[in-house]
Amino acid sequence: MRLGIDVGATAIKSGLVDDRYNVTGKRSRPTDARDAAAFLSDLADIGRSYRGSAKITSVGIGLPGQVDPHKGTLVDSTNLALADVPVADTLSRELGVPAFVGNDANCAMFGEVYAGEGVTTPNLIMVTVGTGIGGGIRINGKIYRGRNESAGEFGHMCVNFSGVTCRCGATGCWEAYASVTALIRQTRDAAGQYPQSLLARLIEEGGGAVDGRTAFIAAKAGCPVAEQVVETYAGYLAVGIDNLLIIFRPDKVVLAGAVMNEGDFLVSRIKEKIRFPDQLCISKLHSHAGIIGAAVLGEVYRDHKQFV
Amino acid sequence: MRLGIDVGATAIKSGLVDDRYNVTGKRSRPTDARDAAAFLSDLADIGRSYRGSAKITSVGIGLPGQVDPHKGTLVDSTNLALADVPVADTLSRELGVPAFVGNDANCAMFGEVYAGEGVTTPNLIMVTVGTGIGGGIRINGKIYRGRNESAGEFGHMCVNFSGVTCRCGATGCWEAYASVTALIRQTRDAAGQYPQSLLARLIEEGGGAVDGRTAFIAAKAGCPVAEQVVETYAGYLAVGIDNLLIIFRPDKVVLAGAVMNEGDFLVSRIKEKIRFPDQLCISKLHSHAGIIGAAVLGEVYRDHKQFV
Repeated sequence: MRLGIDVGATAIKSGLVDDRYNVTGKRSRPTDARDAAAFLSDLADIGRSYRGSAKITSVGIGLPGQVDPHKGTLVDSTNLALADVPVADTLSRELGVPAFVGNDANCAMFGEVYAGEGVTTPNLIMVTVGTGIGGGIRINGKIYRGRNESAGEFGHMCVNFSGVTCRCGATGCWEAYASVTALIRQTRDAAGQYPQSLLARLIEEGGGAVDGRTAFIAAKAGCPVAEQVVETYAGYLAVGIDNLLIIFRPDKVVLAGAVMNEGDFLVSRIKEKIRFPDQLCISKLHSHAGIIGAAVLGEVYRDHKQFV
Repeated sequence: MRLGIDVGATAIKSGLVDDRYNVTGKRSRPTDARDAAAFLSDLADIGRSYRGSAKITSVGIGLPGQVDPHKGTLVDSTNLALADVPVADTLSRELGVPAFVGNDANCAMFGEVYAGEGVTTPNLIMVTVGTGIGGGIRINGKIYRGRNESAGEFGHMCVNFSGVTCRCGATGCWEAYASVTALIRQTRDAAGQYPQSLLARLIEEGGGAVDGRTAFIAAKAGCPVAEQVVETYAGYLAVGIDNLLIIFRPDKVVLAGAVMNEGDFLVSRIKEKIRFPDQLCISKLHSHAGIIGAAVLGEVYRDHKQFV
């Protein structure tokens, strides 16, 4: 069994992946990135927790930032505010097996290519919606990464040049509108504007907490304000997806990330707003894509020499 | 010698292309697309005009619209307002040699791949700026065309979702801001707004005519209004180019189209506004890219089976 660890800005998910890409023993814990020591201690703890349950042959870690696959390090991560962290060494020592690191958006793509839509789809665009928006490109059956392995930063494509400033400093980036971070902001703004709405009351009852599901829960409960948040958010997602469809005319654009668990309630709205709705789908791997992609990093690095 | 004919919305350019991709006997005439008969008669006339000067072995025609390479027809062209025109048959009959048709943006890309930057650049994005904005994608040394051979319609990527309506009906398309058609509109608007400017006076002296060079001529003559038109236009070009750089991280983005004859006066302004200025260049083939690309269509169709 290969152990896959998918490190996100808010949670670390992990699981064991068998030869048929089934995921078992899935676990999740909040990401603690106070400092490199705390972060590595948690990763070692996760590794240890699997030692009794199966014979582990390798471990892969997907990380939200730039990685060095040779050194096995997290080079730099804006989301975690960490740099130069020896992730692979720590886990390799803990488990006594080879350890590999990869970028998280790449891992979602690798999962899709090895176990999901990619198996039968030579031209595939992967869009992972989370704290930011990451992407992956597969052309003629091969993963394409471009200069410095950094193609596919779809989140920083400009969709509104007269719009808001992104945290990257540029104007009108897609993820400034369509990431889950943006959705949370849009949800808060709508609730603030309509304090009598069901949405606002739900948030108040929950002690003020808002996450990527809040607007969907309220919309499904019939709140017109939340309904409008979801509809507008679907429109923001549609603009960037439509661009990718026009630019690549791929066989498929595959959507991943926890927000896609909303399924058709979200995706049917996106499909209404894009030019080639038949080419859009949700990852069948759901939130497993990142775990599977991390678990197969050893294979990926063997099969695709350009990644190491 | 191969004859290449590059049909644009406003002019038909042609020339003979030798084995080293040199262009000789270059000619240009206004496009007359009143009806299919007038259009075909002009094409036959162009073909005939080369018969005496060299032994022609094949002819290729780049057309602004959708083509059927099998039938050798122009299927449909919004720019020419023509449909189902048997272009290859007409020229093949006139010259007694094989004739091939291709889409004009593709031809510019083929020219670049066979005779320009593409020769040494495996990952290349081609942007052809004219009446609209066309594109080409070369990945890992191979031309990529996607579903229905229609990838690379960069002109219809949305860069301003709250912006103007494109002639395609969508909102905020790149070409609605950065095509030469848009530049001409921006030039007219600025002259109208500042009737005392040098720009407005130049246009008046020219009998009201405005083309893609007008703003550049006035800007170079010191007109601050025209200078602002050029600067803003460079910004519009930069937004879409930056998106392509972020999405593909290619070795190069190559710019083509007559407006690129403005050279560094335009391109240095674009480079100031994009994230990876070193990856941007102008086609060395200049306005020959389309002629060379049309002339090599026979080779392209032999080398890249996906195009026929």
